[in-house]
Amino acid sequence: MSDVITQGPTQMLDALREAKRPAYVCTIASSETAAIEGLSIAGASAEMRRYTPPADMECLFYGRARSIPGIAATPDGIPSPVIITMAALGLTKLPVFVVDAGCEVPPQTPYFRVGDRPADSILSGRSVANAAELYERGWHLGEQLARVTDYLLLAESVPAGTTTALAVMLALGLDAHGKVSSTMIGGANELKRQTVESAFKAADIQPGSLAADPIKAIELVGDPMQPVVAGMALAASREVPVMLAGGTQMAAVAAVIAALRAADPNAAAGADRLCIGTTRWILDDTTADLLDLARQVGEMPVFAADLDFGKARYPGMHPYQAGLVKEGVGAGGSAICALSYGGVSKAALMERIEGVYAETVLPMLAGNVA
Amino acid sequence: MSDVITQGPTQMLDALREAKRPAYVCTIASSETAAIEGLSIAGASAEMRRYTPPADMECLFYGRARSIPGIAATPDGIPSPVIITMAALGLTKLPVFVVDAGCEVPPQTPYFRVGDRPADSILSGRSVANAAELYERGWHLGEQLARVTDYLLLAESVPAGTTTALAVMLALGLDAHGKVSSTMIGGANELKRQTVESAFKAADIQPGSLAADPIKAIELVGDPMQPVVAGMALAASREVPVMLAGGTQMAAVAAVIAALRAADPNAAAGADRLCIGTTRWILDDTTADLLDLARQVGEMPVFAADLDFGKARYPGMHPYQAGLVKEGVGAGGSAICALSYGGVSKAALMERIEGVYAETVLPMLAGNVA
Repeated sequence: MSDVITQGPTQMLDALREAKRPAYVCTIASSETAAIEGLSIAGASAEMRRYTPPADMECLFYGRARSIPGIAATPDGIPSPVIITMAALGLTKLPVFVVDAGCEVPPQTPYFRVGDRPADSILSGRSVANAAELYERGWHLGEQLARVTDYLLLAESVPAGTTTALAVMLALGLDAHGKVSSTMIGGANELKRQTVESAFKAADIQPGSLAADPIKAIELVGDPMQPVVAGMALAASREVPVMLAGGTQMAAVAAVIAALRAADPNAAAGADRLCIGTTRWILDDTTADLLDLARQVGEMPVFAADLDFGKARYPGMHPYQAGLVKEGVGAGGSAICALSYGGVSKAALMERIEGVYAETVLPMLAGNVA
Repeated sequence: MSDVITQGPTQMLDALREAKRPAYVCTIASSETAAIEGLSIAGASAEMRRYTPPADMECLFYGRARSIPGIAATPDGIPSPVIITMAALGLTKLPVFVVDAGCEVPPQTPYFRVGDRPADSILSGRSVANAAELYERGWHLGEQLARVTDYLLLAESVPAGTTTALAVMLALGLDAHGKVSSTMIGGANELKRQTVESAFKAADIQPGSLAADPIKAIELVGDPMQPVVAGMALAASREVPVMLAGGTQMAAVAAVIAALRAADPNAAAGADRLCIGTTRWILDDTTADLLDLARQVGEMPVFAADLDFGKARYPGMHPYQAGLVKEGVGAGGSAICALSYGGVSKAALMERIEGVYAETVLPMLAGNVA
């Protein structure tokens, strides 16, 4: 399928094409790390970033957000990647499940509640005090979800999640500096490096010192999405294929999974039923290296939807092609699902994304959104 | 199938036998109504009743409660009907989903959060202020659940739920006095009548005065489970068969559904894809009349698992046969599912229930539960 770029074996992509009832599950969380100036633009301001995860989920259920007007956007008004997810899920009619791992503002949708608090800043050196509990809850949820689907897409919406991804991967001993993506062009890599260094000092850990204790790594410098998705993926992949639908944030989840598997042979059963699904913009990001991270976590296959917003009908979409936003809310994985399982052409998917843009963003630009 | 007693057409029972992937969904809630002395014994004391819904859900996930020691029980130590549900779901490996419609104490399991507060007492005349929102959330959840299952069992665990059931059915104009069951023998019918009369006075309504506005009836004198399950059932039954798994509390949900359908032709699509599934002890209850209530809400078919605890190995189970507890946590519906879909014999089901009793209740009786 030329509309999906692949690295590694393609069985997981074939399995998605042949799936009978795939399901989409998005885990959301918030963290004080997102309040660090300059780290995240997943939201129009630090205040608005609190609403980005619930707003994304509301868009999936109602076609627009409820916690904020219209739809989440960057300070420059570039819309959340949820427009891609909305288009892809709308075309495929996938069941949508929301998992709240710890949000400051809960979504105004039905959702699984597995966490009851947002994360502290990683600068505290103890960002996710309930990491072990979140992992256990995620595991039990994944076990149940595997009974109702034959292919699970696990997405995320976590502002500043690439910084916590970097921190956890470094704590686990990965060569990750300069390899995580960002909503921003250039990736704010230097600021991320400094932030993670401060966090490691506060937590009193070194790169690699928690290689054998990934849940501890999350507890100290991670975010609440990571243990929940790792638990769901481990439990579910014993039974069904699981796509980690995201960019370098999902590389961190994959690293956690690999470390848990190394520690517990019982968890290794689903090793060949995991992959990462993302967008081509993540692969194009010269200030990051998802493919190398995927290699480091046990040669996990990576698939990327070959989206092209360069000739999009609406100029407001062009910044994606320049490398802004790029991924989130499982945009890439949902698009891959539409292109494979859904049998949707790239042109038809693009037309629907433009349609969603017209329905959600144009009214905002015109000031017609309450 | 002689192990299931039937009233009305049996297509819904045949559909369950032939289902490929049924799912069990239990909606829990708490209400200040349960604090009224003498109304409920679903818990060892008024204080302990706060923990009955979460404890029931924890038993389904972990084999025992976490919020309280062991398992919920009446003041006399008769165990929650969850022992039947645990046995039946264990034998059939059904996926288990928990829906929190508004619990004072949230369960220590993964759960869908659709409500954020317990109900006030119906004596306030405004027990479920967020009833309309709960209905909408339930509807959206039912829509998603229908995409991952081909037969939905909707259960409940709501202390004092038969009193709120009575109140809502009366508000909708049903002839319901003396027809709802209870955890207790005799049903506390006179106390329920007085409580509902006081509630109607506080709400300034008359029997039948809200026949055209069932959500309003719940808002004034209902409980949070009712709008959530009604919404889920209406949305899901457009696509898949739905069993309301419970006793007379589910008759109230059926009454709400019938009233909503009468008001909205769009909601009527799934009219023939609904039934009630319960235990024979509910049908045997001479102080109640589920079958008549089911007739009043549009001839809804009723199925009852022909359970018999009279010769159970453990004397602690015998009170069920005498008419105590009888139903709850979808015990009857789960048992029907094991006997039909699961192909389990009545003897094998009984043996497993005794096994669950031995694993959960005997250690409590021996004082070996922390």
